[in-house]
Amino acid sequence: MSASHGMGGPGTIEALIQLLAKVPGLGPRSARRAALHLLKRRESLMEPLARALKDTAQSVKTCSICHNIDMTDPCHVCTDPKRDRSQICVVEEVGDLWAMDRVVGFRGLYHVLGGTLSALDGIGPEDLNVGQLVERAKNPEVKEVILATNATVDGQTTAHYIAERLSNTGVTVSALAHGVPVGGELDYLDEGTLFAALKARKPV
Amino acid sequence: MSASHGMGGPGTIEALIQLLAKVPGLGPRSARRAALHLLKRRESLMEPLARALKDTAQSVKTCSICHNIDMTDPCHVCTDPKRDRSQICVVEEVGDLWAMDRVVGFRGLYHVLGGTLSALDGIGPEDLNVGQLVERAKNPEVKEVILATNATVDGQTTAHYIAERLSNTGVTVSALAHGVPVGGELDYLDEGTLFAALKARKPV
Repeated sequence: MSASHGMGGPGTIEALIQLLAKVPGLGPRSARRAALHLLKRRESLMEPLARALKDTAQSVKTCSICHNIDMTDPCHVCTDPKRDRSQICVVEEVGDLWAMDRVVGFRGLYHVLGGTLSALDGIGPEDLNVGQLVERAKNPEVKEVILATNATVDGQTTAHYIAERLSNTGVTVSALAHGVPVGGELDYLDEGTLFAALKARKPV
Repeated sequence: MSASHGMGGPGTIEALIQLLAKVPGLGPRSARRAALHLLKRRESLMEPLARALKDTAQSVKTCSICHNIDMTDPCHVCTDPKRDRSQICVVEEVGDLWAMDRVVGFRGLYHVLGGTLSALDGIGPEDLNVGQLVERAKNPEVKEVILATNATVDGQTTAHYIAERLSNTGVTVSALAHGVPVGGELDYLDEGTLFAALKARKPV
């Protein structure tokens, strides 16, 4: 789309489409459709979205306690008086925190690691928010740390490392159960999951 | 996600997610993922996108000749000296113009109707940019008007109506061919398309 809306310089429709195409969920084709949709709804959607992006970008903060992303520091979770402060759920990324909080409804506290240990990518313990987690776990209020890293090799390696680091703090360390996803059919499952589910079988 | 990033008032992450969810291609779930992705790339993506949306929204115009959406009026297509000014391609929406121009590479001029006639929705000829098209067609420079409305009942009704309105202007009126989509397999086609393709069959 060269001639019909400029050469893609700043402030052109083409430049907007190229930025929209970097938003996950939108490819080059849907970015074009999105741009057109927005251009037709300038007052009702495009300008409010521009303002919301600008305002949020300017005032968003990383929580200095749990590393959640929020508009305040400490974040709403860490300052919420209704939360169970005896449990800290450890997750890899902020998105995992949001999922645990919104989907699962876990109402304890959280700690975002900011990734996983990865020999391949050269990510060591000093690159993750582990030291701070250990400090938090030493607070006598805290009784349990729940490791909710991903069920990947790196996620599980990280969980084991953290469990070890927490071993002399006196808190109970637990991890998410592995097993058959609820509603999952056995013959569609990978053998790793099936093996884990068998190993963790329970009396009925 | 109540507590962890506010109650959804203006300037909150939740408000941003709700606006993002209105962008076609993003649902509620992917809007959340998109928001997180943007919040992690504030300087490289979120702020440039906010600026691009604001700047484009402020300076975008509807072309007074062809009704394209562009940063200038008349638009880049109408002012492009390299265009073949003897052909006008008539489309329903701006998105169709972009597709014809970008995908097909049609290098004549365009005319955006702004919809189709629709008895059901109470859309009559006076609601579309038809009168202006007739005026443009009277320009002796114009030799052919190509009707590229959608192959829907409303699109075809509109095409017939326009063909009639143009009948005494002296221009050649043509329409997109109907037939088997290139690469299309016959047994997946609807019978309307197959019938049209048979009717429009050509000597090999």
